Amino acid sequence: MFRKILIANRGEIALRIHRACQEMGIRTVAVHSTADATAMHVRLADESVCIGPPSPRESYLNVAAILAAATITGAEAIHPGYGFLSENARFAEMVEAHGLTFIGPTAEHIRMMGDKIAAKDAMRRLGVPLVPGSPGALASLEEAQEVANAIMYPVLIKAAAGGGGRGMKVARGPEELEEAWRIARAEAKAAFGDDAVYMEKYLDRPRHIEMQIIADNHGNVVHLGERDCSLQRRHQKLVEEAGSPVLTEADRSALGNTVTDALKKLGYRNAGTLEFLWQDGQFAFIEMNTRLQVEHPVTEMVCNIDLVREQIRIAAGEPLGYEQKDVRLQGHAIECRITAEDPLTFAPSPGRVTTYHAPGGLGVRMDSALYAGYNVPPYYDSLVAKLIVYGSSRAEAIARAKRALDEMVVDGINTTITLHQKIMDAPDFVSGDYTIHWLEKFVSQQSNSH
Amino acid sequence: MFRKILIANRGEIALRIHRACQEMGIRTVAVHSTADATAMHVRLADESVCIGPPSPRESYLNVAAILAAATITGAEAIHPGYGFLSENARFAEMVEAHGLTFIGPTAEHIRMMGDKIAAKDAMRRLGVPLVPGSPGALASLEEAQEVANAIMYPVLIKAAAGGGGRGMKVARGPEELEEAWRIARAEAKAAFGDDAVYMEKYLDRPRHIEMQIIADNHGNVVHLGERDCSLQRRHQKLVEEAGSPVLTEADRSALGNTVTDALKKLGYRNAGTLEFLWQDGQFAFIEMNTRLQVEHPVTEMVCNIDLVREQIRIAAGEPLGYEQKDVRLQGHAIECRITAEDPLTFAPSPGRVTTYHAPGGLGVRMDSALYAGYNVPPYYDSLVAKLIVYGSSRAEAIARAKRALDEMVVDGINTTITLHQKIMDAPDFVSGDYTIHWLEKFVSQQSNSH
Repeated sequence: MFRKILIANRGEIALRIHRACQEMGIRTVAVHSTADATAMHVRLADESVCIGPPSPRESYLNVAAILAAATITGAEAIHPGYGFLSENARFAEMVEAHGLTFIGPTAEHIRMMGDKIAAKDAMRRLGVPLVPGSPGALASLEEAQEVANAIMYPVLIKAAAGGGGRGMKVARGPEELEEAWRIARAEAKAAFGDDAVYMEKYLDRPRHIEMQIIADNHGNVVHLGERDCSLQRRHQKLVEEAGSPVLTEADRSALGNTVTDALKKLGYRNAGTLEFLWQDGQFAFIEMNTRLQVEHPVTEMVCNIDLVREQIRIAAGEPLGYEQKDVRLQGHAIECRITAEDPLTFAPSPGRVTTYHAPGGLGVRMDSALYAGYNVPPYYDSLVAKLIVYGSSRAEAIARAKRALDEMVVDGINTTITLHQKIMDAPDFVSGDYTIHWLEKFVSQQSNSH
Repeated sequence: MFRKILIANRGEIALRIHRACQEMGIRTVAVHSTADATAMHVRLADESVCIGPPSPRESYLNVAAILAAATITGAEAIHPGYGFLSENARFAEMVEAHGLTFIGPTAEHIRMMGDKIAAKDAMRRLGVPLVPGSPGALASLEEAQEVANAIMYPVLIKAAAGGGGRGMKVARGPEELEEAWRIARAEAKAAFGDDAVYMEKYLDRPRHIEMQIIADNHGNVVHLGERDCSLQRRHQKLVEEAGSPVLTEADRSALGNTVTDALKKLGYRNAGTLEFLWQDGQFAFIEMNTRLQVEHPVTEMVCNIDLVREQIRIAAGEPLGYEQKDVRLQGHAIECRITAEDPLTFAPSPGRVTTYHAPGGLGVRMDSALYAGYNVPPYYDSLVAKLIVYGSSRAEAIARAKRALDEMVVDGINTTITLHQKIMDAPDFVSGDYTIHWLEKFVSQQSNSH
């Protein structure tokens, strides 16, 4: 096992990784920008190295400085956390070229999944479901009609050469198909000089459901159930749950088997997440994240596995030591991402935290690098705390989240605590009846009611 | 279900009960002395009533004031917590006489278990093991020899009329028996005017192991496994674990069955704990606590059951809804009781808390009513925080406790955090090789090394 690990990140995830290392008896090296000299991850680490000025490009993305810090301190491995360099294949290669261990998948897999088209092609070949559609460009309106009847309306006609919404038209029924076909082709021709179009099933009310997997270097792959991350604002997840309120045990097991079979064939290692859109019982692969995710704690709560510990064990060459049948998913977990932002306008709110009081008690976990007196810097992601609650049922978890949010105090900056309180009270959230569009509408209702 | 509950307690346990109520949608009434007007349990409760001056006798033990507070606020039930009025059978009767529900067992069972001799007699009749010994007074030295041979040395000869250690002699082998017999009888005669003596097995290195049970009003009784509470100083528990490092699954199951059978015959209801001394594989009943215990959270962590919620559900007449086979004990939990005391001299250290920072992350639970700016009053128990950690193994739980203790900050008063750090590092604790005498020796070694 490693004796010393460098944590190439900041904030709550740097602290999260430090905690796992400390519990494993591994010494930690924090790196930090000049803006983070008094940050919690620096205060708690065994050693720390300043790697540059506040700008992420010059510090947390500064590969040379990070590798130098690892060399100077004698770190044997680097954990990249999420964001920053975590999905940079070149960084993973350079870490390994320096004789250090990159705690994550191979550079090859990072690169493959970083190319979203290559990732989809790979997953299709591996038997993972994608959005249903035409195999390629449509030769005629008749073929478009045949495909639409097969995949069922509504359908989307998209420019083969396209992007950015141009040359894209929805047909909600057969009566709309001919016009959609005509306009999409004309727009495609005008925009891209190519009128080739293809067809995909249009998902008008999907949920975002993702599957956590963990794989060792010896060919063992298990899934740890799904997370429902449909509560998003501008593609930023705000609330995540494990498990999804809409999946049955059979759905979970079927998707889990598909995903673990695919990653076994791929030879994938370490932690990873396959993201899907889900609608009407159908899954469609969107992308794969080849790293730890922000919302990983909800999975940890329901399967009682420490994902960061597992990542480190695997990177050190240890086998998983358990099989799919040993993974038991129990109860329900919810994560509220609390950001230093105005809860109505989402304007960033950096500054000095005058009071910080974490909620406690049964079933409450706080992952946060906040402390009283801490200055939230303006340079980085606004996430300052993750409140994770666990209950034996979803209703219990929601009730627990409400009471924990009521106890939590962060003074001196604006936070989204009050927004989370409103979400936990919203009938649509309580019933589990929401799609990826729900939160934006809810937020604009909140703003309008003010 | 109740709409409003009065919490007849203070500190972390009042907060603990409030949290359970809030999660169940039940409004809470806090009561408090004038010294506790700004305490956390008062701040968070839906309503609060001042019931008297700081002296516990005039406030938290003031039955008339508490019943008046319940009547005025329209509370339907009273949760007594631990300590104060929680094992006062007369209080339980008066609560019921006022048409309110006492959240706990019947007054009859509280009274029976409050009388320690009656409790032992009852448990013996119900088949619960006690310390082996002579059935009554010993008629002769020969009978003493026979009993000693049967129960095996070392044995204790005790004055039948005795107490306080007078007329009590240990015989470590047959060669010591005659002298012990002679001296014990002489001392008993001198001290109590009665030379009748009886014999008990002398437990020279026992552990304190207790069994948590929960019973509804419909005859269902289940046990939730044991806690090992051997780390005591002057009969005050300092560290508790679930499960005990020395019990096998078969031991646990056998003791659990004995205890649940006994309490079914007794018709016991609500939560309760049977305390045992354990040595060489043998259990000996000491006493039963007819209330929630300070250390209940370690049980909650390993069986994933909210004991306070269960107490309230049961008091409202709900059936348990699960059987013994549904109770699964998983992983390991440790509680560190952190008191406002000097960690070497145990001198009380009331005063203003200038900084309070709770540890967080995976597997860490804080039950504490502390906050920055809180004034720990000098009038009550010095317990200010319970750090509870959960891990999939005992080693993982210990590692987690260490890192959580490292993160915890309480400034302005002395606390026992540093003592807990030393305990978590002590080889005897890590190996699980300790008795109820271990901590006192460890503490005096710590004092001497200063």
